[in-house]
Amino acid sequence: MASSLDALSALCKRRGFIYHSSEIYGGMPGFWDYGPLGSELKANVKQAWWQFTVRGREDVAGLDATIIMHPKIWKASGHLDTFADPMTMCKECKKLMRADQIEDILAEQKKKPVPHNPEGTLSCPYCGGEMTEPKPFNLMFKTVVGPIDDPSNTAYLRPETAQAIFAQFQNVLATSRQTVPFGIAQMGKSFRNEVTPRNYTFRSREFEQMELEFFIRPDEAVEILHGHVVTLADNPDLNGPVQDDWGWEVWHKYWVEQRKKFLNAVGLPTEHFVEYWQKPDELAHYARACVDIEYDFPFGRQELEGIAARSDFDLSQHQKHSGESQMVFDDPLKQAAKKMDEAARKAFIEKTQADWVSRGKDPIEAEKFCLALFEGKYVPHVIEPSAGVDRLMLALLCEGYEEQNLSEDPAKPDVRTVLHFSPKVAPIKAAIFPLIKKDEAQMKLAREIFTKLSKKFNVMWDTAGAIGRRYRRQDEAGTPWCITVDEQSTQDGTFTVRERDSMTQSRMSYAELLAMMYEKLEF
Amino acid sequence: MASSLDALSALCKRRGFIYHSSEIYGGMPGFWDYGPLGSELKANVKQAWWQFTVRGREDVAGLDATIIMHPKIWKASGHLDTFADPMTMCKECKKLMRADQIEDILAEQKKKPVPHNPEGTLSCPYCGGEMTEPKPFNLMFKTVVGPIDDPSNTAYLRPETAQAIFAQFQNVLATSRQTVPFGIAQMGKSFRNEVTPRNYTFRSREFEQMELEFFIRPDEAVEILHGHVVTLADNPDLNGPVQDDWGWEVWHKYWVEQRKKFLNAVGLPTEHFVEYWQKPDELAHYARACVDIEYDFPFGRQELEGIAARSDFDLSQHQKHSGESQMVFDDPLKQAAKKMDEAARKAFIEKTQADWVSRGKDPIEAEKFCLALFEGKYVPHVIEPSAGVDRLMLALLCEGYEEQNLSEDPAKPDVRTVLHFSPKVAPIKAAIFPLIKKDEAQMKLAREIFTKLSKKFNVMWDTAGAIGRRYRRQDEAGTPWCITVDEQSTQDGTFTVRERDSMTQSRMSYAELLAMMYEKLEF
Repeated sequence: MASSLDALSALCKRRGFIYHSSEIYGGMPGFWDYGPLGSELKANVKQAWWQFTVRGREDVAGLDATIIMHPKIWKASGHLDTFADPMTMCKECKKLMRADQIEDILAEQKKKPVPHNPEGTLSCPYCGGEMTEPKPFNLMFKTVVGPIDDPSNTAYLRPETAQAIFAQFQNVLATSRQTVPFGIAQMGKSFRNEVTPRNYTFRSREFEQMELEFFIRPDEAVEILHGHVVTLADNPDLNGPVQDDWGWEVWHKYWVEQRKKFLNAVGLPTEHFVEYWQKPDELAHYARACVDIEYDFPFGRQELEGIAARSDFDLSQHQKHSGESQMVFDDPLKQAAKKMDEAARKAFIEKTQADWVSRGKDPIEAEKFCLALFEGKYVPHVIEPSAGVDRLMLALLCEGYEEQNLSEDPAKPDVRTVLHFSPKVAPIKAAIFPLIKKDEAQMKLAREIFTKLSKKFNVMWDTAGAIGRRYRRQDEAGTPWCITVDEQSTQDGTFTVRERDSMTQSRMSYAELLAMMYEKLEF
Repeated sequence: MASSLDALSALCKRRGFIYHSSEIYGGMPGFWDYGPLGSELKANVKQAWWQFTVRGREDVAGLDATIIMHPKIWKASGHLDTFADPMTMCKECKKLMRADQIEDILAEQKKKPVPHNPEGTLSCPYCGGEMTEPKPFNLMFKTVVGPIDDPSNTAYLRPETAQAIFAQFQNVLATSRQTVPFGIAQMGKSFRNEVTPRNYTFRSREFEQMELEFFIRPDEAVEILHGHVVTLADNPDLNGPVQDDWGWEVWHKYWVEQRKKFLNAVGLPTEHFVEYWQKPDELAHYARACVDIEYDFPFGRQELEGIAARSDFDLSQHQKHSGESQMVFDDPLKQAAKKMDEAARKAFIEKTQADWVSRGKDPIEAEKFCLALFEGKYVPHVIEPSAGVDRLMLALLCEGYEEQNLSEDPAKPDVRTVLHFSPKVAPIKAAIFPLIKKDEAQMKLAREIFTKLSKKFNVMWDTAGAIGRRYRRQDEAGTPWCITVDEQSTQDGTFTVRERDSMTQSRMSYAELLAMMYEKLEF
C-alpha cells in the first residue's frame, strides 16, 4: 500500500498512468489526464461497474445523457440555490480558500491553528492575515448555449450525473419494459469548480462518476401489496435474489452490500475500507439514511462512494418544476388495494398519517398519498449508490502499490515495485516474451500467441532485455501474467506463465491459459 | 435502409435508443440522450473502435484527457481565431442562421431561392426580410475556471479531442515505449455551439469523437534511412504489415483503408459509402491530403469521418506557443545520416530546398530542417483519422433499418421492423426464451443459460407472449440471435437458435452457441 503520494505519483507519471492536463502550458489546477496505462485502467474500472451494475442484472437499464442540460434541472435539484462552498479571501496575501478547509490546510502544514482574530473572524493559515467574511460560491461551471450571449441562455456543466436519470425517468420507464423496483445507471464526466482542488486526482474540477438510481416502492405500497414490510430487523437474506416485500431500509442495505461486493471484485478487500453510517444530524433533510464508504488514502480517510436513501425527493422536485407527472402506475398495487374494504382503507390512512406526522410531515399530504396509492399510483423512492471513477482508480493505485524487497540479505536490498491490481482492472492482462529473441521458432510461436490473445485482451509484446527485467517492467504496470515462450514451448506447445504477486511459474497449454484468464477476468 | 428519419426516429424513441435531452423541461436544441438500447449501442461502437485502433495494435497508445484544457491550446491550434461560422440575423423576423446554410434551408423547404435584395445582401429564407451582414461566431463554449470571474480565467470546452493528443505528445512518447511511427488515440465528448443544430443527432452541440493522431517520419527522414520513399505509385501492399520505408502518401492511404475495414466490420459495406478525396483548393493550407468518408443519410450525403494528412502543423504550432520542443530523437535516422559524406549532405539539402520551394516554403527553413535531421531530430508529421461516434451510430441505425414485408399475399401484408446491426455493435447480443413459461424444466434450463451468458454478453430474458411476438420485439432492437429452450432442450441440451436476418433456425449445444457467438463478436 502506498504510504505517501510522492512515490506513487512519480510512478504514475513515469509509466503513463496520470499526467497534469495541459502540462506544456504550465498545467491547469484540478485537471488531470490519463495516459496509455491510465486510460486502460479507467476503461476497465468503468466496464467492470457497467457489467456489475447494468449488463449483469435484469433490473437495471443504462442511460448516456448530455453534460449540458436544461438549466431548470439545476433549479429543481437545488444545485442552483445551494450547491456552494463558503469561500473566503485573505485581505493581506489575497489567497482564496474554502472557509471549512482552513483547519485541514493547517494540519497539512503541521502548524498549530492560528488563533482567530480578536473580532472573531478567521485568520489566514498562510500569513495570519484577516480573512473576509465567507460567502457562498456556486460550484457549477457556467456557459452560454446558442449564439446570443444573454443570461437567459446560461447553462451549466452538470455537477453530477444523477439528475439526468431523474429527468429521463419517464422515458426510460416507458421504453425499457422495466417496472418498479428497477434502476437506471449512468457513467460520465461531471464538473465542479472547486475553490481549492487538491489531493492529486481525488478532488478534481473535472471528474467521472458512476451513478445508479434504483427506484423502489414507498413502504406504504409494499404494505398494501404484501400486508407487511420486511425491515433489517427481520434479518433478510441480502445475498439471495431481491424480494418484493423489502422496505426501503432493506433495499438500502442491499445496495451497500452490492457495492462492497463490487469493490471486493475490483481489488479492495472489505477490511481495507470503512462503512460509515451518517448520523441523523448529518443527513440531508430528505434522506432516510446514507452510508459513506471511506478509504484510508495517504492524505487521510476520505469518501470513496456513498449510498443514500433519498426518499421521493428528486422525482417530486422534477414533478413540481417541470409540471410533468413523475408518478408510476403499479397494477399489482391497484389490484391489492381493490381488495381492501372501506374500514381497512380508513385504518391504513390513519396509520400512515400518524407515521408521517411523527416524521414532521403533513397529514393532509399523507391522505392524498394514500388515495393515490389505492389507485396504484405513486412517485417512486430511490436508493442512490454514487461512485467516483477517479477516486476509485486512485484507491486501487494506492492499494496496489508496493515496494517489495526480495532480498534476504539486508546489506543488498533487491526492491521490485509492484502494482497489485486485480486482473479485472489491470491495464495489461498479459505480456508475451520469447525467451531468446534470436530463436526463430520461439519468435514465431510467441507472435502467434500474442496475435491470438490480442484479439481478446489488451496484451503486451516485449523482447527487450533479460526475462527478469521484463518481469519488473510488467510488475510496475500491474500486469498479472507474463507468458514466456521457451525451447520446450516449441516442442510441446506449453508456456511458462509467471504470476505477478506470488511470482510462481507454471506451465500451461494455450487452452489452459485461455481458460484460466477467462475465469479470472469474468464477473 | 431508412428512407426518411421519421419512422427511424419514432422507433429510436419508442425502443429507448434516443431521447431529447431534458425533454420534461421542453428539451435543449442540439442535445440528445441515449436510452437503454442507445447507450449499449454507443458503448459497443466505442469499444469496437478502441479494440480495432488501440488494443488490437502494437503501435497505438491510448489517452483520456480532460475536456477543459489550458486556453492557450486553442490559440495554438487556431480555434480561438478561426473556428467560427458566419452568422446572420433576419432584421424582420429576428431568426439567427448560418449564412452558408441559407441555400440548404431553402432546399429543405422545397422553395426556390429567395432572390437577393437589390443591395446584394442576403434575404431571409423564412420571411424574405433583409439579413444582417454575416459576422464570424466562434463555436467554442466558454466558461470560467476558478473562483474569480475574470476574463483571464476564461477556458473553453474542447471542440475536438485531437488537440489534447498533441499537447500530451511528449508525455506519451516518454512513457509508452513507442517510437515514431506510432499513434495516440482518444475517445470522448466534444462541444460546438452550433448556430443551427439539425438533422437529428447528426449535428449536435454536444457529441462524442474517436480520434487517432498517427505520427510518422517526414519523407526526408525516410529518404535518409532507406535511400528511397515508397509512394502510392509503387503500389505498396496496404493489407500486410506496415513498412518502415512508406512515405506520408502511403501512410495516409493505409489509414483510409484501415478506416474502411473498421466501417465494414461494424456493419457499413464499402459500396454504401463514398470515399471523397478533397481537391487541392479545398484543403487546409497545412494539409497534404484529406479524404472524407461520406454516407447517404436520409437528409443527404454527409461526412461520416475524415482522414487528413496534416503535415507537422499541429505539433509545430504547440512548439511555438508553448516554447516546449515537440521534436523527437530518432537514433536509426542519426546513424543513417552519419554514413552520409559532406557531398551527400549538400546534395540532400539542395534537393530538399528545391522541393520545399516548389511547395511555396522557405529554403532557409529547409536547410535548418535538414541539419536537424542529420542529428536525428524532427517534428513528426501526422495522419489524422477522425470519426464521430454519434454520426456513425446514426449511419448504423439508418443502414440497419428495414420494414420488411414477410407476406406473399399483397392483400395481407405482414411487416416486421428490423435493425440489421452487426452482432459486434448490437445492443443486445442474444435473447433467451423458454418456449413454455409454465414448464418448470424449460424455465430452469433457460435461466441457467441466461445466467451463464449474462456474465459474458448483454443478453435479454423474455417470457411474455408467443415466440413470434418475442422474435419481433428483438428484431426491432437489432438482436442477432434468439435462443429458445423447448422440450427437446430439456432432453438433449440443445436449443433453437434463430438468426435475425435470415430468420433461419438451427439447433446448437451451449458449447456450439458460445463458440459461434465468440467468433462473430471478435475482431
